[in-house]
Amino acid sequence: MMYSDIPSAQMLVLYFKSRGVRNIVISPGSRNAPLTLGFTKNPFFKCFSVVDERCAAFFALGMAQQLQEPVAAICSSGSALLNYYPAVAEAFYSDIPLIVVSADRPSYRIDIGDGQTIRQENVLAKHIGYSANLKQDISHAPALVAKYGKNLLQESQESIQTYNETEIGKALQVALLEKSPVHINIPFEEPLYGTVAETSLVIEEIHEGVDKAPILDLNDFKKVWEASGRKMVLVGVNQPNAIEKEVLEVLAKDGNSLVFTETTSNVHHQDFFPSIDSIVAPIEKSENRDELFQELQPDLLVTFGGLIVSKKIKAFLRKYQPKNHWHVDSKKAYDTFYCLSHHIKMEPNAFLKRVCNLDKEPSGYKLKWLGVKNNYEEKRNDYLGQIPFSDFMVFNEILHQIPKGYQVHLANSSTVRYTQLFPMQPTLKVFCNRGTSGIDGSTSTAIGASIFAENPTVMITGDLSFFYDSNALWNANIRPDFRIILINNSGGGIFRILPGNEDTVEFSTFFETHHVHTAEHLAKMYGFSYETAHNEEQLHTCLNDFYDESTNPKILEIHTPRKLNDKILLGYFDFIS
Amino acid sequence: MMYSDIPSAQMLVLYFKSRGVRNIVISPGSRNAPLTLGFTKNPFFKCFSVVDERCAAFFALGMAQQLQEPVAAICSSGSALLNYYPAVAEAFYSDIPLIVVSADRPSYRIDIGDGQTIRQENVLAKHIGYSANLKQDISHAPALVAKYGKNLLQESQESIQTYNETEIGKALQVALLEKSPVHINIPFEEPLYGTVAETSLVIEEIHEGVDKAPILDLNDFKKVWEASGRKMVLVGVNQPNAIEKEVLEVLAKDGNSLVFTETTSNVHHQDFFPSIDSIVAPIEKSENRDELFQELQPDLLVTFGGLIVSKKIKAFLRKYQPKNHWHVDSKKAYDTFYCLSHHIKMEPNAFLKRVCNLDKEPSGYKLKWLGVKNNYEEKRNDYLGQIPFSDFMVFNEILHQIPKGYQVHLANSSTVRYTQLFPMQPTLKVFCNRGTSGIDGSTSTAIGASIFAENPTVMITGDLSFFYDSNALWNANIRPDFRIILINNSGGGIFRILPGNEDTVEFSTFFETHHVHTAEHLAKMYGFSYETAHNEEQLHTCLNDFYDESTNPKILEIHTPRKLNDKILLGYFDFIS
Repeated sequence: MMYSDIPSAQMLVLYFKSRGVRNIVISPGSRNAPLTLGFTKNPFFKCFSVVDERCAAFFALGMAQQLQEPVAAICSSGSALLNYYPAVAEAFYSDIPLIVVSADRPSYRIDIGDGQTIRQENVLAKHIGYSANLKQDISHAPALVAKYGKNLLQESQESIQTYNETEIGKALQVALLEKSPVHINIPFEEPLYGTVAETSLVIEEIHEGVDKAPILDLNDFKKVWEASGRKMVLVGVNQPNAIEKEVLEVLAKDGNSLVFTETTSNVHHQDFFPSIDSIVAPIEKSENRDELFQELQPDLLVTFGGLIVSKKIKAFLRKYQPKNHWHVDSKKAYDTFYCLSHHIKMEPNAFLKRVCNLDKEPSGYKLKWLGVKNNYEEKRNDYLGQIPFSDFMVFNEILHQIPKGYQVHLANSSTVRYTQLFPMQPTLKVFCNRGTSGIDGSTSTAIGASIFAENPTVMITGDLSFFYDSNALWNANIRPDFRIILINNSGGGIFRILPGNEDTVEFSTFFETHHVHTAEHLAKMYGFSYETAHNEEQLHTCLNDFYDESTNPKILEIHTPRKLNDKILLGYFDFIS
Repeated sequence: MMYSDIPSAQMLVLYFKSRGVRNIVISPGSRNAPLTLGFTKNPFFKCFSVVDERCAAFFALGMAQQLQEPVAAICSSGSALLNYYPAVAEAFYSDIPLIVVSADRPSYRIDIGDGQTIRQENVLAKHIGYSANLKQDISHAPALVAKYGKNLLQESQESIQTYNETEIGKALQVALLEKSPVHINIPFEEPLYGTVAETSLVIEEIHEGVDKAPILDLNDFKKVWEASGRKMVLVGVNQPNAIEKEVLEVLAKDGNSLVFTETTSNVHHQDFFPSIDSIVAPIEKSENRDELFQELQPDLLVTFGGLIVSKKIKAFLRKYQPKNHWHVDSKKAYDTFYCLSHHIKMEPNAFLKRVCNLDKEPSGYKLKWLGVKNNYEEKRNDYLGQIPFSDFMVFNEILHQIPKGYQVHLANSSTVRYTQLFPMQPTLKVFCNRGTSGIDGSTSTAIGASIFAENPTVMITGDLSFFYDSNALWNANIRPDFRIILINNSGGGIFRILPGNEDTVEFSTFFETHHVHTAEHLAKMYGFSYETAHNEEQLHTCLNDFYDESTNPKILEIHTPRKLNDKILLGYFDFIS
């Protein structure tokens, strides 16, 4: 065991240990040496080295998302910290306890022209659960403190230590209880490399428990539930197995509830509606649009889980608002449809068990939309039988062939949107960074999430997301069973379905950002096996042994025709209409 | 000509044009479509497409640094903007007028669970010259505004337009006059793709001029200058040719001034002191340290230019403070040595011409240190004659062989520090991101700076900086005469000279971050010619035709022995002591 000789560095190590923060992603630097020494020399911690801080933070985020516990990323001073910000914003909106720790110079070194020095305190304040701005230990390098940091001398080392301990404690409480990202900024004065074998610090053990939620009187909700003839339950992002089987059964059996599930919801039942856009898009196209939307419009909308992917359902519910919208979540509720009537601060299982205990025959409302579902499911199969090789066909193929139990990580933009159009096997565990829906860190997140996962992980990604986060592969910890399926349509193909699409150089350069890159060279560089498919036959051959045990992780790159994809996608909605 | 049909988008385009903001770096997205349409369809503007926003902002920064005028980077909503932050912080501390423009959703779409939506307003506030938070045009999509943005309706479209115009104007004034980065956030409601052929907007022409600086009475300064027996002039980052020849001559002839110049200062004279650490390091090692430092200690320290690289001169001057420290800069002054007595708000040429008009024989002070300089210069040559292939030798070789007139871009960390140890040819123009001294965007900056440069550019970089910013190469605008010299010592070799160095797995993993990657695959992927050198002979062969005209840009990767480099560097300081 070994500690830095700087008290605040020792304190952080002791606090992380006492609160069970075990996994630490370290980016190299000198200013953070007191922390790097403390964590790497203490066998309680599992440390990972990732150079690019943007990837490091997403990698830590992925681990935290999978473990459902805080994971820390630690960097040096200066712009390093700013590279954490995209992952911190994702963690903020996805309620993931990412702890970012930035080493800093003492306050008297800020804005005096020193290198690698910025205004780190509170710099992530707009998207953070808590910012702990620790103070410089005056017991460390007292001569320097006396010379430059004269104002610091008004405080005793003891009061500084008390302050720092309180701040670290608060930050960790927020991460642990609220599942929010937190930022801890620690100024260190040189010398940075001194160590001691033992620490004399004694830290406060955790004592604050989770506040017991008051038992809500649900009678009024129960009455509204029973009185509502048309109910829609819309389920956003959930951890796999978060919603109990029993609750799903009750929901499915409710005679006048439509349960709309997104791929990221990780809930499944044959009577649910898993491809929302396949229901809504044909209505948008219909001449009887208004009438059909009124037929779909619920009296009561109940939502739980995280952010909703489908733009179509959002547009529908904003226009055809339910009388009541309840969001069930013990932490927060967004007014996504501008008609939120109640934020029910409860865990969804508990709420649903107590409210929906009906077991009625399906109403006309339910039967009608089950019919619509059966119809598009049949037509989808017909359509798949007649289209050429394209994104649409490829997504159907690859989603069918993922082995049972896999973690499936989806990149944003077209990947997650295509995936929503197809059924998912219930044993798969689906993840996607839907907090900010960015394309900036999906691969790093997937690699992080795979580290401690029971089953192997497959990442499905488009080309822009993949190349954006190519530094994700610069990571010595990638498991040999990690798989990437890259659907390369040579640019941001999704922009082709937007209304501004034209066949001009400006369009292909600035919207589609057409390119001719492939993953082949990156695969070689970072030790991945690499295969490529340009048609259906090659795809089948490649998928045949893609998931077999291997000594290296693998990339399968599938090239699809960039000018055809959007037509086939739009054609699908026409076909099922 | 074509404009978006959204007034604020038209206004931004017109303002940029009227203020001469011509170069626009666009990252793909849908929310920013009104801007992408406006800029790409208007021949006044030169647009560039870069997908990774981190690279895009550094690329724009490099252009702005080279052109000495504002350059804009434009992105979609969400975490895209956060990826601009490292470059914005660099621009903030380096006084570069980088304009970042983020498309946003209207305020009633924030924090209600929409995708790609974060709290963009003022999110870069800690490191920005101005944040202009524009308002949503209610004339655009009024039905949606009426439905969801009811509070917006209290304002008229006219008042919104006036507000937006004022804000855009202010932001551009700050960029133009203060050379600071600015952030313009523009909310757009759908539909985003509507266009008009003409604009009816009339914008205010620029009217505020640069405030004429009051003429300072410099008599007191002149008296102190003349009365100071020992003067040190320390020159930080300057644009090439910023300091007039005449001024340099006067400075050089001043009998009791030592002019200490950093490589990034771009000033040269045979009587200046260009390798500061070669003067200071031997004193640090001397038994008579205190006495020698007292002999070097100036009465008056005059500084101009940007941030100082040499840690040794900072440590020396903080301990052996001059009686007076003047910083000459029309914008700002950092109290880098904790003894700043005057910030002289003038342009350095004007100040120096009026203050230093002495032409005296060298004093003992000057003669002594010129002697020390001659001594280390001789010894450096001897040392170079006897050391094996290593970083130290390689820097000497490559710096000697850069053709006249080239732009030389240096990565941070070891690259800029090694470079400071060797003489630079006076015709070279040297640049380095010293604002935050980050390793995060050096290659992107160099590529941006090369675009409009009169002469070709060579980028010198270490391996961690290079791989960190590998997406820089994902850019369709790289000139065929662009050159990269990558000195690959398989990790953060600079950490080996730090006091904590040990030969352990923790050290090589978490401090040095040892790796075995090369640039070969990236070169193939992005169409660079690639050569590699493992010894002196190969290096000579490679350098022979490295700068010859070529159809592709080139990378020369030089592999140096990672465990030897630090010893040879430390050995140099011993040898010249």
